[in-house]
Amino acid sequence: MGASSEALTQVLIPVAALVGIGFALLQWLLVSRVKVSSHDSSNGYKVKLIEADEEEEGIDNIDVSIKCAEIQQAISLGATSFLFTEYKYLGIFMGVFGVIIFLFLGSVKGFSTKSEPCTYNQGNTCKPALANAVFSTIAFLLGALTSVLSGFLGMKIATYANARTTLEARKGVGKAFIIAFRSGAVMGFLLAANGLLVLYVSIYLFKLYYGDDWEGLYESITGYGLGGSSMALFGRVGGGIYTKAADVGADLVGKVERNIPEDDPRNPAVIADNVGDNVGDIAGMGSDLFGSYAESSCAALFVASISSFGINHDFTAMSYPLIISSMGIVVCLITTLFATDMFEIKNVREIEPSLKRQLLISTILMTAGIAMVSFFALPSEFTLFDFGNEKEVKNWHLFFCVSIGLWAGLVIGYITEYYTSNAYSPVQDVADSCRTGAATNVIFGLALGYKSVIIPIFAISISIYVSFSLAAMYGIAVAALGMLSTISTGLAIDAYGPISDNAGGIAEMAGMSHKIRERTDALDAAGNTTAAIGKGFAIGSAALVSLALFGAYVSRAGIKSVDVLTPKVFIGLIVGAMLPYWFSAMTMKSVGSAALKMVEEVRRQFNSIPGLMEGTAKPDYANCVKISTDASLREMIPPGALVMLTPLIVGTFLGVETLAGVLAGSLVSGVQVAISASNTGGAWDNAKKYIEAGGSEHAKSLGPKGSDCHKAAVIGDTIGDPLKDTSGPSLNILIKLMAVESLVFAPFFAAHGGLLFKFI
Amino acid sequence: MGASSEALTQVLIPVAALVGIGFALLQWLLVSRVKVSSHDSSNGYKVKLIEADEEEEGIDNIDVSIKCAEIQQAISLGATSFLFTEYKYLGIFMGVFGVIIFLFLGSVKGFSTKSEPCTYNQGNTCKPALANAVFSTIAFLLGALTSVLSGFLGMKIATYANARTTLEARKGVGKAFIIAFRSGAVMGFLLAANGLLVLYVSIYLFKLYYGDDWEGLYESITGYGLGGSSMALFGRVGGGIYTKAADVGADLVGKVERNIPEDDPRNPAVIADNVGDNVGDIAGMGSDLFGSYAESSCAALFVASISSFGINHDFTAMSYPLIISSMGIVVCLITTLFATDMFEIKNVREIEPSLKRQLLISTILMTAGIAMVSFFALPSEFTLFDFGNEKEVKNWHLFFCVSIGLWAGLVIGYITEYYTSNAYSPVQDVADSCRTGAATNVIFGLALGYKSVIIPIFAISISIYVSFSLAAMYGIAVAALGMLSTISTGLAIDAYGPISDNAGGIAEMAGMSHKIRERTDALDAAGNTTAAIGKGFAIGSAALVSLALFGAYVSRAGIKSVDVLTPKVFIGLIVGAMLPYWFSAMTMKSVGSAALKMVEEVRRQFNSIPGLMEGTAKPDYANCVKISTDASLREMIPPGALVMLTPLIVGTFLGVETLAGVLAGSLVSGVQVAISASNTGGAWDNAKKYIEAGGSEHAKSLGPKGSDCHKAAVIGDTIGDPLKDTSGPSLNILIKLMAVESLVFAPFFAAHGGLLFKFI
Repeated sequence: MGASSEALTQVLIPVAALVGIGFALLQWLLVSRVKVSSHDSSNGYKVKLIEADEEEEGIDNIDVSIKCAEIQQAISLGATSFLFTEYKYLGIFMGVFGVIIFLFLGSVKGFSTKSEPCTYNQGNTCKPALANAVFSTIAFLLGALTSVLSGFLGMKIATYANARTTLEARKGVGKAFIIAFRSGAVMGFLLAANGLLVLYVSIYLFKLYYGDDWEGLYESITGYGLGGSSMALFGRVGGGIYTKAADVGADLVGKVERNIPEDDPRNPAVIADNVGDNVGDIAGMGSDLFGSYAESSCAALFVASISSFGINHDFTAMSYPLIISSMGIVVCLITTLFATDMFEIKNVREIEPSLKRQLLISTILMTAGIAMVSFFALPSEFTLFDFGNEKEVKNWHLFFCVSIGLWAGLVIGYITEYYTSNAYSPVQDVADSCRTGAATNVIFGLALGYKSVIIPIFAISISIYVSFSLAAMYGIAVAALGMLSTISTGLAIDAYGPISDNAGGIAEMAGMSHKIRERTDALDAAGNTTAAIGKGFAIGSAALVSLALFGAYVSRAGIKSVDVLTPKVFIGLIVGAMLPYWFSAMTMKSVGSAALKMVEEVRRQFNSIPGLMEGTAKPDYANCVKISTDASLREMIPPGALVMLTPLIVGTFLGVETLAGVLAGSLVSGVQVAISASNTGGAWDNAKKYIEAGGSEHAKSLGPKGSDCHKAAVIGDTIGDPLKDTSGPSLNILIKLMAVESLVFAPFFAAHGGLLFKFI
Repeated sequence: MGASSEALTQVLIPVAALVGIGFALLQWLLVSRVKVSSHDSSNGYKVKLIEADEEEEGIDNIDVSIKCAEIQQAISLGATSFLFTEYKYLGIFMGVFGVIIFLFLGSVKGFSTKSEPCTYNQGNTCKPALANAVFSTIAFLLGALTSVLSGFLGMKIATYANARTTLEARKGVGKAFIIAFRSGAVMGFLLAANGLLVLYVSIYLFKLYYGDDWEGLYESITGYGLGGSSMALFGRVGGGIYTKAADVGADLVGKVERNIPEDDPRNPAVIADNVGDNVGDIAGMGSDLFGSYAESSCAALFVASISSFGINHDFTAMSYPLIISSMGIVVCLITTLFATDMFEIKNVREIEPSLKRQLLISTILMTAGIAMVSFFALPSEFTLFDFGNEKEVKNWHLFFCVSIGLWAGLVIGYITEYYTSNAYSPVQDVADSCRTGAATNVIFGLALGYKSVIIPIFAISISIYVSFSLAAMYGIAVAALGMLSTISTGLAIDAYGPISDNAGGIAEMAGMSHKIRERTDALDAAGNTTAAIGKGFAIGSAALVSLALFGAYVSRAGIKSVDVLTPKVFIGLIVGAMLPYWFSAMTMKSVGSAALKMVEEVRRQFNSIPGLMEGTAKPDYANCVKISTDASLREMIPPGALVMLTPLIVGTFLGVETLAGVLAGSLVSGVQVAISASNTGGAWDNAKKYIEAGGSEHAKSLGPKGSDCHKAAVIGDTIGDPLKDTSGPSLNILIKLMAVESLVFAPFFAAHGGLLFKFI
């Protein structure tokens, strides 16, 4: 390998990142060709007339497009204002937590500026612990900022694309699909490329100080993962509460009490609901997957730094995780072209297969990509450390590790689709159970969610066994990275969902025809499934990432074994397994309480604004937006505190062994709760859509909208909202974040932790 | 200590058991004083007139009492016939599984009849493995038969007492309470005393063969726990599906579609529903707690046999677990007198406090009892084996271990009461959330269940930490036994619930006055809470028992440590954590499908039997009973197979380490699912009762029966049925049974297991 390969690596990674960013901007440009325009609208914005081919009904209807522009404006303003308010809180948190990181890590060696002997690369001298404290804090802040940026950009493009998708839907479902999908791709590529670039540049700059101390360098870099994930936590929880409070509140009064359709402009909570999709499902999801991506990269880099790569200073091999991600960007770029340029969607039925094809194509191409990278970047044989033991690993072993993670992701994605798409029997059975009312619907839906856990867990288990056997914890870390290597495509199809959901909302609010609404509904139904697939990926990768981080934590904390049969570990395990329940109880109750407040406000407006039901008066959308904003910001603090404080409290008072138990317990239990919650919710949502669409004899026998079956289905859908969009997906972050936080603070816990047992 | 203490022990244990049985029979006698009698009824049974003090309305109404007798007859017949059909299946299972035990254990040393060197008591010779195979099989069959007997006797007394409780309710709530409570006590004492007696006699007889080989003796005795628990599994699952299929089916058509009250005699599924209470909540619960009790005794005895007690052949110290149970019977006997003779219930509000007082009194008295036993039966200092290390333990250490288990049980009981009784804010909040419909009711109910997990898990963790630190795995085993030492009282207040539920059903069906129905409803509401408390105990003790069995398994399988960070253990852990979900999916779906069949039948009868709604024609109860019976027997096989086969498959193909992971994973995850499911269900049931009873201004504002709030509450109640009575409580058995099965088969797995890894 040597210097020429090092130089090549140093060029290729940033180039791939820049190509990704360029491609994202190109997609944005293509989306922007659809003009959303209106006369000077009431809020004073200057906008132009619609320019579009007049192929179908309503395209020349200026009123409709003015309305679309207005609604888009309102959604975008609401989302931006929420995110800025949220970022103010997060800014304070970042400051405080940055100080905590510095103080805890600095105190490990009593803030001494003396260099230390290295732990792994024995005989050499490493930088002082104080330097690690400083650089960990900087990495934390960088990760946090990149995460916030990822979420914010995603929200921007999503609120930019929603009305454009609606307008394109007038020309046909295929056109609308492409706009929504391209916009998703903007987010996917920006996020992956930004994440890679910032990480790469940080390593480069940190290296200027650390020089040959690779242990210290990559120890500090783990702060990047912590920063990314802690922002993701608040993004997911805050955004999740926001979106579901608005959604549940809007549905309870609108659909159930007033009997008006979903997204009806008379409903005061309707704008808040659409804002919620953007801040929860887009910004929250973006931060979440960015967090997974940052953490798995950091875990892999950290483990690699103590392998023979690190000790021999083989820069190319050391950068293997980053090269995999670079290759992922290129592969996803090619994959995207299949959806946007090579095939055309002509029919509603083609949407889901097209999205599924994206997963399959990216997986197949990436497998070849991994093979290339593994054989070019890695030496044919090298040494890893497996908790003190040395382990000989070959380059094709790593090819298998990455590939098995990648394919496990595909399996999880497909299984999730099977359990949440209304094209298959599980969701149809749930829809059928609505015949006997809401209770059987809920029982069948819960059972479906529980059942949907089985195969993903086997897929994860097999990946873990194979990758661990081949390359110990490094194998797990790169398997996680493999699952996330096609993140750009994954995010594209995932972000596509809420964009289509918004597009449907805008069509309804703008009073567009039934035909248009049917098209956006079909896009949205596929979006529910892809959202569930995205959550499946997020959870699967979170499981692998957490395990890799957990392994890195154990190494760094100097624990010899995590034996279940010691009481310290066992109580950690059982308490850890309890945490997902505690956390879910908090977030679900939060959604419930916030929704009740929303219900009161919506009822108040219906009762006190004359002419609202008749459509002659406008509701006060802003007040509902404010209620969701206030509730979500207030309610995100307790669950956030639970996650952030648990590792600190357990590590400090009960010590590193109990903390190891807590991490393992929350991992194995949280994965199950998260998968079942998000699939149950997805299935209920699509069971409802199945009845509404009436696409088959069976579906028609259950419908139409407003029938008893449909009412039962709406109840299930409402229950599923907090499960699938708040508590379920937040659990990924719970398990990852506790693991990465433990890893960052491990030196402190190892030096000063376990106070309680010391005093007893 | 010496021979005199040994003789005393040999007398005291069976005497305590016989006293328990005598006390149970006395209670039965007192219950039988209430005469249920009628003229020659239509089914040809010869019965006599009612004899009772004529103090209140309707007591001289012969028609009513004839009706009660008829209904009781029908319920008793239905329950007996179901149990006998179930036992036929179980007989086949016992035969087949007995053969499996014999073959697996016999093959450990190739069916050799040669004696072996002992494992722990080094230098001595122990009996051949083949003898252990034979005696384990015998112990398994004895345990299975005792379990079946416990369930059957419980069902008999419950169906004997239900109509008597109804009739006594005419005289006042206090009288009815005493009948229901005494009947529960019959079951509690019979079960505890029988279990103790059979175990004691088995040990005595086995000893005739084993002589000085205490290792082999107590290894074989663990088969008793396996037998007890495997019957409990089928009892719980089969009974649980039976009762909830009938309950859900009856409610869906009766309450929701036809708008007739619960337990209305026009509903064809009403008898099946009441039969279900007896076969599920009584027989199933009895088998379950008997299983816990047998397993914790066996685990404690097994661990003790390899301690210095076993090696020094100190019979009294060795019998410590059995002496604790004997003391428990005496303590519970005194406690019962407080409820039946020292205080009198005059008011509906006194019911719950009186039941809670039972828990408190028994716990306080038992603490003193444990102290006595610990100081008299144990040497002041002795040696235990802690996975190869020797550990010095003092007698007061064991006092703390047993006591902490006992008090943790009380804490769990009280917390469960707090979360499921409608006297406190959690259930009232859930009831309040019905204002906005069924969806918020479900969201709040699920959140309540998740939250209710927190404190029980901390209580269990502290017990585990303290008892393990003091006396290693033996400490855990006796802590479990401590929690179960007041099992007679626990079962009495638990069985009281379904008896009251049945009494209410009979009152409704017999057309008794609103006043009587109100009294039985109040008894029943308290019964829902005590049922939840009982489930809390069952789960808490199951967690401790499983851990003790798990520890014993690890000892017996010769595993050095169960390190989470080895891939074999970790994949076991995550798959184990998944099993409760798989199992719940199966059982919930089973209830759903069986309920749908019931719904069809009930609808068919309403549509095809003229005059049924008007009350002029009788429904075909027997057909509904048959549907429940067939469905539950067919549907109990897949979940039963999952639990029984998992340890065999994992142990044989993946080996002892992966199996250890599976046990730990299913334990830490199953406990959470079980607690949250049973508390959520209990809370929904009582939220509904809270609205129906209208006992406060708040409750009145939500009611009355038939209001929108009440309808939403009924939906929650129906969803909760399978959670709290089928899937939730069956999970205790899942975690215990897999552990005890692994323990029994450990020698086989250690010798021949892990085939898959051997071949790769």
